[in-house]
Parts: sequence; structure tokens; C-alpha cells
Amino acid sequence: MSFLSFRYEDHSNFFSEECFKARVKENIDYLEKVQEGEEKYASFLGWHRVDEWAGEEWLKRYESLASEIRKECDTLVVIGVGGSNQAARAVYEALGKKDIEIIWAGNTLSAHSVNKLFEKLEEKKNIYINCIAKNFETLEPGIAFRALRCYLQKKYGEDYNSHIIVTFTENTYSWKMAEEQGYKTLPFPINIPGRFTSLSPVCLFPLSVAGFDIRAMKRGAIEMEHKLKNSTDNPALAYATARTMLKDSGKTVELLSVFEPSLFRFEKWWKQLFGESEGKDGKGLLPMDALYSEDLHSLGQFLQDGSPSVFETFLHIKDPVASFVLGSDGVEDGFSYIEGMDFSYINNMAYEATISAHSKRFPCLIIEIKKMDEETFGSLFYFFQFACYISCLITGVNPFIQDGVEAYKNDMFRMLGKK
Amino acid sequence: MSFLSFRYEDHSNFFSEECFKARVKENIDYLEKVQEGEEKYASFLGWHRVDEWAGEEWLKRYESLASEIRKECDTLVVIGVGGSNQAARAVYEALGKKDIEIIWAGNTLSAHSVNKLFEKLEEKKNIYINCIAKNFETLEPGIAFRALRCYLQKKYGEDYNSHIIVTFTENTYSWKMAEEQGYKTLPFPINIPGRFTSLSPVCLFPLSVAGFDIRAMKRGAIEMEHKLKNSTDNPALAYATARTMLKDSGKTVELLSVFEPSLFRFEKWWKQLFGESEGKDGKGLLPMDALYSEDLHSLGQFLQDGSPSVFETFLHIKDPVASFVLGSDGVEDGFSYIEGMDFSYINNMAYEATISAHSKRFPCLIIEIKKMDEETFGSLFYFFQFACYISCLITGVNPFIQDGVEAYKNDMFRMLGKK
Repeated sequence: MSFLSFRYEDHSNFFSEECFKARVKENIDYLEKVQEGEEKYASFLGWHRVDEWAGEEWLKRYESLASEIRKECDTLVVIGVGGSNQAARAVYEALGKKDIEIIWAGNTLSAHSVNKLFEKLEEKKNIYINCIAKNFETLEPGIAFRALRCYLQKKYGEDYNSHIIVTFTENTYSWKMAEEQGYKTLPFPINIPGRFTSLSPVCLFPLSVAGFDIRAMKRGAIEMEHKLKNSTDNPALAYATARTMLKDSGKTVELLSVFEPSLFRFEKWWKQLFGESEGKDGKGLLPMDALYSEDLHSLGQFLQDGSPSVFETFLHIKDPVASFVLGSDGVEDGFSYIEGMDFSYINNMAYEATISAHSKRFPCLIIEIKKMDEETFGSLFYFFQFACYISCLITGVNPFIQDGVEAYKNDMFRMLGKK
Repeated sequence: MSFLSFRYEDHSNFFSEECFKARVKENIDYLEKVQEGEEKYASFLGWHRVDEWAGEEWLKRYESLASEIRKECDTLVVIGVGGSNQAARAVYEALGKKDIEIIWAGNTLSAHSVNKLFEKLEEKKNIYINCIAKNFETLEPGIAFRALRCYLQKKYGEDYNSHIIVTFTENTYSWKMAEEQGYKTLPFPINIPGRFTSLSPVCLFPLSVAGFDIRAMKRGAIEMEHKLKNSTDNPALAYATARTMLKDSGKTVELLSVFEPSLFRFEKWWKQLFGESEGKDGKGLLPMDALYSEDLHSLGQFLQDGSPSVFETFLHIKDPVASFVLGSDGVEDGFSYIEGMDFSYINNMAYEATISAHSKRFPCLIIEIKKMDEETFGSLFYFFQFACYISCLITGVNPFIQDGVEAYKNDMFRMLGKK
């Protein structure tokens, strides 16, 4: 694969090359199951063939609805929480605003945050909203949608319905409500759990409205699908094997570290994908994120010398994302040894130095990609989803359910007096 | 203490009341040591008596320099990383911008982030910078300071030096450089490790420039100091005892959870305080943060049903921070049962429901404060610093050093060709 590579570095004598290779070989049975897609999970595998929700017909539909809206609006408010917004937001925050701004809502119950949202909207000219929810009972998107409808009603009068696009599960109460109210509709894929919806209308439609190249995303994902399904020399298998081996050897936390702060939201997407898929039946690695180099000044000490509960996975972009060369104002400040260097070069040295230092303490897993663009995100989403499925098989849990969250939801509905 | 309380909730049969009380009693020896401050740590205890760096004379000095600058500037760029910026930033992000904006720099090597910083500065009228560094060899603040000086030189010509205030260690190379260049200077407290500098010029000066009430912060801290040093019925002792008991029973991760997203930076401050103080000699709890309710949709499943490696500490504000009442646009959307409720009330119910659900799985430690203002932050900073000192004594590590980060720094300096 030209644009994604996996390797590990270990000077802590934790892995032996032979042991790792033997384990990869043992796990090929799991890989084959994942490559085919197991019959028992058929109703969750809508993401497994990228073309199922990102085929030509679908892309045309997302793009045509998007271009209709793009003619009118300067701002799209995306209402969603967890699996309904993380993937789109990861791309948006990493690649930066294009011509149309997205504002993210429906992910908080804080009145303070909601007030800030409406203050921000006051500066905008023409607003559309895309409410995304698999299960429309979920509180945060539900009440944000209502608050935003009230706002639109005041702003646009009777015609406010035309500013609304919903991505809901078909043939549900909320879907019927949407049709009655005359909202535009897109289907929330019934056969994909929220955290696996990166290559579906959940993620692709808002990104298309914002001006991103969703065909490039699809291209990256398809190429990755082809690679992962047709080879046993497989980076997803290697990654899944390494991380589950580390778990078996007593590690409890996987830290995903990046040297590009704008990947912050991608880390959140990754955390949900693995935490919610793997964290059940008393099992799973706790996923945690770090934004370097800043967090080296906070977590570095612990990693190097604290409890040995953590191992680290680095996600790194090889080509410089941007350029800024350090100049001089003539002051002898002790930093002349890096004068004329590019920040991107220095950042890369910090990356190398971190791996060199940390891999003396624990194995470092390293995933490198070439550059940061839509195509890469498509491939990353598919790569991690596929690797997560293998990991869960090795761990022995069902990747596609999340019934552990019901306890909290039931307690809350009871307290709020829901019947 | 009227404005901070500690308790725990546990329906997992992990703690017994008697066992906890007995352990608290045993730990009173440690409390007494911390109340007095140990002789062997004297050179690190500049934070221990709030008046040492936030006494009347000091406050006057911070305020008078701040008011001089406030007359001129609309934007203060604070250059710092880790302990040099976390506390001030925690207050700034939580309480919101006052009349003068702070832009945070010196915490990244990403060229992308640095470019965004300079784009932002183009919109500003009159810029001052406060560069804060205990050890001016640190790369991120060092090169950001240089890049910003070059920028100011272009913008203001020869007079650019008058826009610079440095908070440096006295009698060092960088301090002499600052004096030669005619920068305004404040001392970085030589007897406080960076992560304990919340009640010193490192934090108080930039907040004073931005328009925050630093006397209220000091008041909160002094009141907390008085309470913690004069009682054995002590929330800091109780918190330190509970968390170290949980560590001894096999928990590896402490998750600090908040229901107010604007406490995001406070969590980062807390993570550094505990991670860097406690994470040494193969010991320590890994500190991790969660922003609820959003992260419930990502981590909730793992916490409820995944590996039992985590326990949770809730930091909660009791009084509503803001108000937003849910109205109606007349659509039957299934949320009429919460019509007319305030988001702050709903958020509070989510908090109660989360504790109810999670405490069935593991003990939940609960720290409640009344409201979110400068006074509270002063008391919180002191509370956690004091509790961290006790925790480290119980754990058996030196809270005030951080030599584990040297490995990475040495590797990097070598790669960059530093002599």
C-alpha cells in the first residue's frame, strides 16, 4: 500500500520478531473471516463494502442535494453526537473550512455551550441544518434540533422547514414526522452502527455541502478495501495483532499520539470506534489520545517513568502539511542552531525523538500516511474500521453492539419523567 | 468548606465505609507532613504559602504592569507550554474572554498551527506578548518567541521591544538577554515547579491583563490554604486517600469527568499536575479526561462494561452556569416531556444519572463546587496541588521533579544538532 504503512519499534525487549510473526500467522483465520464478513453480523456490515452506501448512485444523490443547498447557504449546522458527527468533524477540523462553514451542535447539554452556539449563529446570513440521528430518542441531538427549529422559525417564518435536512432511520416515527413536515430526507444506514458510518450519508453529505471532495474520500476507502480484502500481508492484521498481544501482556491503555493538533477530532473518532466496539464483557483496551508536542510536556514524564500500563500508537503524516521557516530578529537567544529550519522539519525531528525515547520503555506501533487530504481520510476510516473488526474477533467480543450505555440512558429518562 | 465538598458513591461493593475511614486515619501522618511542608522539599514549596507569590506587594506589581499594558493593547499573546500556560488558560477558557483577548502560542511545533496563529494576528490592532519559560531552552516557546519577535519587529519597527514582557528565571542567560533588550520582566518563581505555579506571576499576570479578578483568585486560594492546613477533616486527604486506595486495588487510570465543556483546559491542567508529579519510579495513576455529556456517547460503553481498569472522579459545578429553556415550534417530535425545562436542569440530571449508572460498576469520587468564578478557581488550584502532594507522599514518589522527560529532550537536541 503506497499511502499507509504499519510497523513497530521496540527497544524494550517486549516483542520478539519471531513471536510477533507467529501470532500474525495464527490470526490469519480471523482475517479471513473479516475479509468475507461473517454471516451472523450481516445486519451490521453495511460499511464493509464501501460501494453499498458510497456507490455512484448514492454519491450523485448526496452531491445533488448538497449543491442545491450550497446555492443558498453560508452556514450548515450539523446536529449529531458520537457516531453521527465524529467522522465528518474529523475531516472538517483537519482539512480546514472550505467555502461553507459547518457549526457543530447537538452534542452537549450545557446551557453555556448552547448560548454560545446561538451567539455565533447571529453572525451568519443563511443557515441550513442537517440533523443526524439513528435513534431519535437520544437527548442531545433531539433537543438541539428542537431549539434550532424554534430559531429558524423566528428567522424565516413559515418557510423554515425548507432549511432542514434530516438523516434519520427510514420507517420510524421520526422519519414520518420529517416527511409530514416537509423536511428533506436522507436515510441513516440501517445496517451500520453509528461509529462505522464514515462512508455513508452521515459523513459524506455534510462534507459535500461544505465543499470537500467526497469522491476522493470514496476513492481512498475503495483502494483500502481492495488491499485489505485481498492480501494476508495486511497492515490491519498486523496492527490488530500487535495491539491485542500488548493487551494480553498486561497493557490496559492504548494511547493514540499525533504531531498535528488539527487531528484532534480524528482522535475522538478513533476513541469511540475502538472504545465502544471493544469495551465489553470486561474486556478491551482503554483508548486515550495525545496531541504532541504539547502533551509531551504533560504526559511525557508518566510515559517514560510512570506505571507501565500504557503503550502507544503513532499516527503520523510524512509529507509536511504546511511550511514556516524560523527567521531572526538579531537577538542572541540561544536558538541560532535552528535558524532557517522549517517548523515541519523540527516537528518531524520531535516525532523521531519521541519514538526513540518511548520505544526504550514500551513498544511503539507506528502508522504512517503520506499526506493529509480527503483520499487519505477515506483510507484511514476504512483501515481502522477493518482493524477494529479483527481486533474484536481476536478479543472475543461482538464489535457491533453497545448495550452498556443503556444503564445511564434509562436512569436519565426516569429522572426526566419520560414515559 | 462551603464551596468545595468531597464524597464518593459506590454501589460496586468496592469500598467499605470502615475500611475507607481507617485508611484516612492512617494517612493523617502524611497530611501533617504536607500541612507543615517537608524540609527536604523546601526549594519546591514556593506555592505552599499562597502569600509567597500572591501577597499584596506582588499583586500590586502584577496589576500595575497589567494596567499599563491594558491602556495600549487589544491582544496579549501568551507564549508558554505545559506548566507555563495551563492554569491561566484553564481560567480563561472557562470564564470566557473579558475585554482583552489572549492568544495562546509556544505550545506547538506544527507549521500549520503557527500559520493559523499569524493569520489570526493580522486581524488584531495592538499586540503585546508575554513569554513565560522557566527553562528557556525548551523548544516550543523558544522558537515561537523568536517568530513573534520577528513579526513585532516588522509591525512596530525599532520600538518592538516595548511590546514584550518576559516571565523568566532570574539570573539566567535569558534573563540577562531580556534586560539587555529592554523587555519588561517578571520573575518565574525559582522555588515552584511549573505545574504548581497557578498562584504566581506565571498565571496571575496574563489573567490580570485580560481583565480577570486576580484578587478573588487569591482569596479563594488563601481560604482553601487555611482550611486544608488547619483540619484533619480534610477533603484533600479524603480525595488522596480514595484515589491511592483505588490504585492499590488494581485501578490504573483515573478519569476526570466534567459536564461543562469549557472546563476542557482545566482538565489539561489537572492531567499535567498529577501525571507529571506521580508518574515516576514505575508508579502513578494515568490521568485521563472526559467531557460529558458528549463523551458518554463514546466512552460510556467501555466504562460500563469494558476492562475494569478505570475509576472516575467527577468535578461538578452545582449552581447553573447559564440558562437556556427549551421551547416548542409545535412539531410533535417526541420531546414534549422536557418542554419548558432548562438545559442546566437537564444537564444536572445527566450528571446524576451518570453517577447512578457508573457507581454500580466502580466507585465514583465526587468533588462539587458551587459556582464557576475566579474565587473558585483559586481554591481548586490550591486544593488539587495540596491533594497531589499528599498523594505522592502516600505513593512514595518525589512530587516535584520530572527527570523522565530528559530522554526525549536529549534525543531531540541531538537530532537538531544542538551543542
